[in-house]
Amino acid sequence: MTDQKEFDAGIQFIGKIHTPWTSRDQCPRNPMETDKLCRVVVSEEYADGLKSIEGCSHILLFYWLDQADRNKLLHVPPVDDKPHGVFAIRSPSRPNPIGFSAADLVSVDGNELTVRHVDCVDGTPLIDIKPYFAAGDSKPDATVDWHVKRSNPLPPRG
Amino acid sequence: MTDQKEFDAGIQFIGKIHTPWTSRDQCPRNPMETDKLCRVVVSEEYADGLKSIEGCSHILLFYWLDQADRNKLLHVPPVDDKPHGVFAIRSPSRPNPIGFSAADLVSVDGNELTVRHVDCVDGTPLIDIKPYFAAGDSKPDATVDWHVKRSNPLPPRG
Repeated sequence: MTDQKEFDAGIQFIGKIHTPWTSRDQCPRNPMETDKLCRVVVSEEYADGLKSIEGCSHILLFYWLDQADRNKLLHVPPVDDKPHGVFAIRSPSRPNPIGFSAADLVSVDGNELTVRHVDCVDGTPLIDIKPYFAAGDSKPDATVDWHVKRSNPLPPRG
Repeated sequence: MTDQKEFDAGIQFIGKIHTPWTSRDQCPRNPMETDKLCRVVVSEEYADGLKSIEGCSHILLFYWLDQADRNKLLHVPPVDDKPHGVFAIRSPSRPNPIGFSAADLVSVDGNELTVRHVDCVDGTPLIDIKPYFAAGDSKPDATVDWHVKRSNPLPPRG
């Protein structure tokens, strides 16, 4: 338990994400840089919440980036040489360090999900799962101007 | 402040979302049911985190559904007559009531964002904003089996 005197609401960890990456600098720079299979283990007490998930081709995974710096508001991402606001980049550093991936759901075995396209450190706490609905969640034409103009396209990791 | 003795991590509210809907039963059933403009107000102390966001065509909004029941794991959604796990549906009821929309970013004025495709109650606390990257976030072919086979296609609201 962290010291939560100053917080407005509380998060319960509902499971863990197991990945091949044991430190932050091994992690892929984004979920599409890797097609390695990862394992999402939902704690037994929350397992009933998985009913019908096996019919989802993709899921939204929400996790807690517990190694992140929560006090940063500006950050120079590795792919650029200019600072951007943390709400305009996908850095783990942000006031509420919620990690997010739209993952392929490969298979379900009881309370364990096998997924593809996750980029977090092994053991990252899971906080929510939602089904991916293409009608509302898919925006194929979305653009991010600073990323189009970025200075350092880096080689992939992971 | 809620009683957080039993929680694993703490959330800070970073702003508010203003919408035309003042109660849960007025809200659209999903973000695509409405094209009403909504206003995301980021608190002054977090406003620096918005730098470069004006170049994003779409953003991921994360908010805190503070009226939700956190103890439910199974729920019969309005569009079906069978119970599904909360991780396979988009109900506000879930252990960590994180609301999520992939919204159009219409305009930015200082610490206020005008957005489209948000479905929450007026005054909902904001917890995070991320840029939408089509390469990783857009899954146009995603399917949800129970939703395809649902019993009650309902008329839109909002």
